[in-house]
Amino acid sequence: MKKIAVLLSGSGVFDGSEIHEAVLTMLALTKLGASYQCFAPDIEQMHVVNHLTGEVAAEESRNVLVESARIARGEITATDRLDIDAFDALVIPGGFGAAKNLCNFATNGSDCEISLEVSDFISEFADAKKPVGFICIAPVMIPLLYGEGVTGTIGNDIDTAQAFNLMGGHHQEAAVQDIIVDEANKVVSTPAYMLAGNIAEANEGIEKLVKKVLEMV
Amino acid sequence: MKKIAVLLSGSGVFDGSEIHEAVLTMLALTKLGASYQCFAPDIEQMHVVNHLTGEVAAEESRNVLVESARIARGEITATDRLDIDAFDALVIPGGFGAAKNLCNFATNGSDCEISLEVSDFISEFADAKKPVGFICIAPVMIPLLYGEGVTGTIGNDIDTAQAFNLMGGHHQEAAVQDIIVDEANKVVSTPAYMLAGNIAEANEGIEKLVKKVLEMV
Repeated sequence: MKKIAVLLSGSGVFDGSEIHEAVLTMLALTKLGASYQCFAPDIEQMHVVNHLTGEVAAEESRNVLVESARIARGEITATDRLDIDAFDALVIPGGFGAAKNLCNFATNGSDCEISLEVSDFISEFADAKKPVGFICIAPVMIPLLYGEGVTGTIGNDIDTAQAFNLMGGHHQEAAVQDIIVDEANKVVSTPAYMLAGNIAEANEGIEKLVKKVLEMV
Repeated sequence: MKKIAVLLSGSGVFDGSEIHEAVLTMLALTKLGASYQCFAPDIEQMHVVNHLTGEVAAEESRNVLVESARIARGEITATDRLDIDAFDALVIPGGFGAAKNLCNFATNGSDCEISLEVSDFISEFADAKKPVGFICIAPVMIPLLYGEGVTGTIGNDIDTAQAFNLMGGHHQEAAVQDIIVDEANKVVSTPAYMLAGNIAEANEGIEKLVKKVLEMV
């Protein structure tokens, strides 16, 4: 049975992992006969957003690993405890957490840096030529991880696509149900809620991404 | 287009809605052509559980409506603002939140009471003969809402089934992929993570439940 790591970044679209995308990833993996293990970095979130009002809850702080455990039903491991030999591939759901906690794209744009724990974690998969799937806004990390000319998509948002190219990537537009595949780097990406009008649309692209990642193992 | 209310109880299996069950409910509704609106009571959670350690975070407090908004991507309404005429049916995912925040079954067993806001909310659907689907542990509320002889399932846990019967219900065992239907009361239930070994198993029962609820509209 193929075993896939799922990298989470908190729990909630505005300050963590997009919950639907994370759950749909787990559903697709399980339906296709793979098992998964969730991971998250043991670091503080950039901030906490009240998801009812959209406002930052300035007095609150939450930990990325602890909050990600909500989506993982408690079954989660810190990123610095990865045994790369035990895993065949990695999938990274989106949500602002990917751009606020895994890296700082939300504040720094194309001057973005990836958190050290996260960069080390993903690089282990890249270095071992194991496929990685990036969903929604998570693909903004692709150029920093894979270098010049790597192909990926964040859908069709012009500013984000420009930033992707400024960081050295080659952005390709994609519709919500599409995936973009960089065969040489074993990188797959899909827009999901960068474009999805509803959960079924997000699911279509995520199912395709998971299927392709498993095929590339 | 049929419009379905989804009642949440926080965000996370140990102190709120079971996240997978909530998301799978939304996926099934959308795939079957229905729209949904999330609701939650604007009350404090019974407590906050650290989902990494399983321990109660005694110093923390969180609001059920605010945390449920994470699963709903911000699109959520307080239960006391229900316009019953705008909805065709209701689905209630499980998770300990259903037994800690919607009612107090987790602490009181068969002496359970349903939170007033929640009881009023669900009763509007029951009184209007609109179908209601209960998932996982949420069915423990069925006897209190529908009275003597109403049929439902929480899977096969003996203690919980006994409590269901003590409260006046008629418990029927069910497997994870099954639903139990009380046609007269328009009540549907399924065990989901009361029994599910993985997310695909939970999804099977939830898909059936959602399909049946929509058929009963």
